[in-house]
Amino acid sequence: MEESKQPIDVGEYLFRRLREVGVQHIHGLPGDFNLQALDYIPKVGLKWVGDANELNAGYSADGYARIKGISALVTTFGVGELSAINAIAGSFAEFVPVVHIVGCPSTVSQRNGMLLHHTLGNGDFRVFSEIGRQISCSTAILSHPEQIAHQIDEVIRECYIQSRPGYIMLPTDMVQKKVEGARLKTPLDMTFPPNNPEVEDYCLNAICKHVEAAKTPIILVDACAIRHRALKETHDLIAATGLPTYVTPMSKGAVDETIPNYGGVYAGSGSSKEVRERVESADLVFTIGSIQSDFNTTGFTYRVSQLNTIDFHSTYIRVKYSEYPGLRMNGVISKLAKRIQDGKLKIASPEPLKAPDNQSVEGELQTKGHDITHAYLWPRLGRWFREGDIIITETGTAEFGIITTRFPAKARAINQVLWGSIGYATGACQGAALAAIDEAAETKKEPSRVVLWTGEGSFQLTAQTVSTMLRNNLTPIIFVINNNGYTIERWIHGMEADYNDVQPWRYTQIPHVFGAKEGQAKSYSVSTKDELEKLLGDEQFNTGKFLRFVEVIMPLKDAPVGLKLTAEASARTNTRLD
Amino acid sequence: MEESKQPIDVGEYLFRRLREVGVQHIHGLPGDFNLQALDYIPKVGLKWVGDANELNAGYSADGYARIKGISALVTTFGVGELSAINAIAGSFAEFVPVVHIVGCPSTVSQRNGMLLHHTLGNGDFRVFSEIGRQISCSTAILSHPEQIAHQIDEVIRECYIQSRPGYIMLPTDMVQKKVEGARLKTPLDMTFPPNNPEVEDYCLNAICKHVEAAKTPIILVDACAIRHRALKETHDLIAATGLPTYVTPMSKGAVDETIPNYGGVYAGSGSSKEVRERVESADLVFTIGSIQSDFNTTGFTYRVSQLNTIDFHSTYIRVKYSEYPGLRMNGVISKLAKRIQDGKLKIASPEPLKAPDNQSVEGELQTKGHDITHAYLWPRLGRWFREGDIIITETGTAEFGIITTRFPAKARAINQVLWGSIGYATGACQGAALAAIDEAAETKKEPSRVVLWTGEGSFQLTAQTVSTMLRNNLTPIIFVINNNGYTIERWIHGMEADYNDVQPWRYTQIPHVFGAKEGQAKSYSVSTKDELEKLLGDEQFNTGKFLRFVEVIMPLKDAPVGLKLTAEASARTNTRLD
Ligand SMILES: Cc1ncc(C[n+]2csc(CCOP(=O)(O)OP(=O)(O)O)c2C)c(N)n1
Ligand SMILES: Cc1ncc(C[n+]2csc(CCOP(=O)(O)OP(=O)(O)O)c2C)c(N)n1
Ligand SMILES: [Mg+2]
Ligand SMILES: [Mg+2]
Repeated sequence: MEESKQPIDVGEYLFRRLREVGVQHIHGLPGDFNLQALDYIPKVGLKWVGDANELNAGYSADGYARIKGISALVTTFGVGELSAINAIAGSFAEFVPVVHIVGCPSTVSQRNGMLLHHTLGNGDFRVFSEIGRQISCSTAILSHPEQIAHQIDEVIRECYIQSRPGYIMLPTDMVQKKVEGARLKTPLDMTFPPNNPEVEDYCLNAICKHVEAAKTPIILVDACAIRHRALKETHDLIAATGLPTYVTPMSKGAVDETIPNYGGVYAGSGSSKEVRERVESADLVFTIGSIQSDFNTTGFTYRVSQLNTIDFHSTYIRVKYSEYPGLRMNGVISKLAKRIQDGKLKIASPEPLKAPDNQSVEGELQTKGHDITHAYLWPRLGRWFREGDIIITETGTAEFGIITTRFPAKARAINQVLWGSIGYATGACQGAALAAIDEAAETKKEPSRVVLWTGEGSFQLTAQTVSTMLRNNLTPIIFVINNNGYTIERWIHGMEADYNDVQPWRYTQIPHVFGAKEGQAKSYSVSTKDELEKLLGDEQFNTGKFLRFVEVIMPLKDAPVGLKLTAEASARTNTRLD
Repeated sequence: MEESKQPIDVGEYLFRRLREVGVQHIHGLPGDFNLQALDYIPKVGLKWVGDANELNAGYSADGYARIKGISALVTTFGVGELSAINAIAGSFAEFVPVVHIVGCPSTVSQRNGMLLHHTLGNGDFRVFSEIGRQISCSTAILSHPEQIAHQIDEVIRECYIQSRPGYIMLPTDMVQKKVEGARLKTPLDMTFPPNNPEVEDYCLNAICKHVEAAKTPIILVDACAIRHRALKETHDLIAATGLPTYVTPMSKGAVDETIPNYGGVYAGSGSSKEVRERVESADLVFTIGSIQSDFNTTGFTYRVSQLNTIDFHSTYIRVKYSEYPGLRMNGVISKLAKRIQDGKLKIASPEPLKAPDNQSVEGELQTKGHDITHAYLWPRLGRWFREGDIIITETGTAEFGIITTRFPAKARAINQVLWGSIGYATGACQGAALAAIDEAAETKKEPSRVVLWTGEGSFQLTAQTVSTMLRNNLTPIIFVINNNGYTIERWIHGMEADYNDVQPWRYTQIPHVFGAKEGQAKSYSVSTKDELEKLLGDEQFNTGKFLRFVEVIMPLKDAPVGLKLTAEASARTNTRLD
């Protein structure tokens, strides 16, 4: 190997690269195989979060990446990395770029097959990284110093471009090995490789023909538009065309829901009548980043013909049945928007539309007694959320309720409609709240307000995340729906079954037990509409600089309509015999 | 397929087999892919635990199996099974038989590659079972009814015989398929396949020669004697020979520590002077089920020559350097004991020995101030533990402290010296406490008292297990050492580093926040020897039928000697360059 011009330690190189791409807080837990690596975190000006366990750390890293663009997680060999694996699998499924760094035994110990703690006792030091590889878009086993800088760059870049987890196995004896620091003068190239212009234009022309012929086109924006970073292009297209624009459960927050051409959420049979009619009668549907999973489509109930559809994806475009592999949506959408903007392509001007107005609450408020019901709750929240809020909803009633909420401008949403691992939302809330602060420091604005809605069943899985929030002085607003168990499961199977009950906790004492200092957190419990109304109207609650923890007591069987329909569909799919 | 004589549902068959082999409580969490299977649990007379999350459930299943012989865990596809995988890997490493049943999408959905929740979104339904296979001794994907009964039998049997996890993937549409119920009339054959008698005798003769020549033989019992069910044979050998008998950190509880020929714990340089001298000068060492991992040997510091050693294992015997593959220790040890017992083989009678007497506390008590120190604590506990106690210690200071405690008769210990995943001990405590009750119901005795010692850093990972204990009316005694962070890690690296701190919790409020009813739990906090003495002398505390939760405040840097030595060795191994 040539002499390094500016030799620096592997540990320093790694964390400086992560900082360069926007990571400011590192999630994870210590373990003797990563301790020395952790020493570099403050050295390069990063901060250590110090999570309570690795699964929570993984969820939080996912939440951080969704707001900040990318994140990093450090765990220890075997015990730590496997504890986090479900979170990483979720990031893989849902396209979230998390760089997972696993501190592992030294290359010497590995070569000698030593019987170390955290091994399976069989001398196999690769079994965990091979498992990690299954749920990573790029994997690097660092063991030869002369390759390490390149390997690190590769994993970080792939992780970001493919928007999926990357895995780095870092042996203890590599941490202080020297690599070429001069490389750091050239920032990583994080841009998408451009499309082949000939193919792009060819595809665009095919699209334009259909656009000209269409009378009632609409736009349906889905989650991959967010995850594959095509929101700017999407917004340009929406602005240029003025077309009726819909989102899906998974892509809530992708578009500004206050614009006049926002139509609501399309989720097949789980959508409102107006939305269904308009979307399903459209003679041309632009889908952007579509993910037609069961929970995103109310159990596969789309009624949109492929003959009327143009699908934009991150790795291909499909115009009706013609596929264009290798094209990334960003370039194509942006050119399409420009052609329309420049008057070079005519597009039908749409009829005005009526979007959900967050007002359906009134009737509900007067007629249905005191209980806080889902039909009341979610539109009501639509009037409570504020511009720029980050809104996190857990798998369960909350995830389906939020579909009926119309968001304020600049709201962003976090959910896990595809992977659906409960406990995720509370973990993600911590990461998102931290990212909101890091983001605000960069943009010199007030940090976004971060609001979590979780069921209590889900909350129990990762409750100690609240401790990590307090430790890091985070001040999200946490709503825990206490409806006496796993209501979503009840609707799928076992309405009265014991296994759908959970242990009743004293939720309001959670922040205190996890160490909230005087004034750091405040708890509330509401069980009637009046109580909730009062709370939502309380300006101290709305803008306070303390963690707010609200137990929201709701009826055991009450659930949003979308949930009931999806649950029925799931139950059918589970028992279907052919 | 022939007509079944007594057709029964797959779900029923599975749980009846589990019940037959001794499982009475099923651990796990519901999920829509396993709900229908759960319906069979009460039907066959089993009970559902309803854990708070899957990792905790996995740890608890491990604890249950260690006491009850085998256990079962039910999780849901992807999200559930991956959440538990670190626990299962621990059971694999440490030889604990846990049958892991994963409810998964129907075979129809799998065949159609449906884009379901809990998938990676890529139509791959095998990726999780392939991961599970890495850490299971037997794996079954149930999809053809005519094979299912056989597959279930096979996994349960292998799991038990190999004493490692088994994995069963149960699609929703298989749960109600019919299998031959008449098979249940023949109980599973759970006996070890016998050794080839010719090889066994040959090996035994080789052993006897060395026995006759030996002047100062000793017995060193290690964890595989417990895990591979060779304790009866081991006890016979100890009784027949009267030899000085030692255990290791990992095998605490394997032998009756009150017998006069009990010598203490051998762990290389981490052992007491008397123990080292006697073990290391022995001219013949019988090791039974030895696992010479770093934390079990104070960093590989054994000084016992292989030329003086006879190793008994579950899959081979080694006499000095001669190996006898395929022999299981049980038969050989039992024949050896019998020969001696019957006077057919002479063995040297040993000098009397001085075992640790749990009295070293006195000096410590008077001289070292009020703080509760490790040097004081562990021998003191030796005088507090009672016959039959189940004693669980977490990785950290507790795991090393317990080495210096001499146990009462019939005590059993649970630890994870090899896998060392923190949070494990609290989870295992729940399973052990439940198993103790199930065991007592069978033997018609009082259930064993269950005592947990964990560090607070570890406790934070799986704290919500306490909720599951309360839900199941369990009454263990939980001691949480509060020493302001990860003391064991401090001794390895970063004594003052932030990353070794943890968020300070209000530990004593834990049972209350997790829903303890009036009288169901009681909390204590002790920070001086006097306070601890008072508590240990309180008969209500010692024998109460409520969950006891004790915060034990200890000095930040204080640690057992064995820990300090092991930590130094680990730090050296981590940084060693060749
Ligand atoms: C890790 C994991 N375990 C189990 C499940 C199965 N599951 C899906 S939703 C749910 C219940 C959620 O209950 P809760 O959070 O109380 O929501 P709600 O009552 O509002 O529906 C369960 C157990 C899962 N999705 N993920
Ligand atoms: C799942 C997991 N994550 C991280 C580690 C690394 N680790 C080993 S011991 C330990 C600290 C334990 O601290 P505590 O429970 O407070 O014990 P103490 O030594 O302070 O008594 C850590 C973080 C691990 N072994 N397992
Ligand atoms: Mg609930
Ligand atoms: Mg501690």
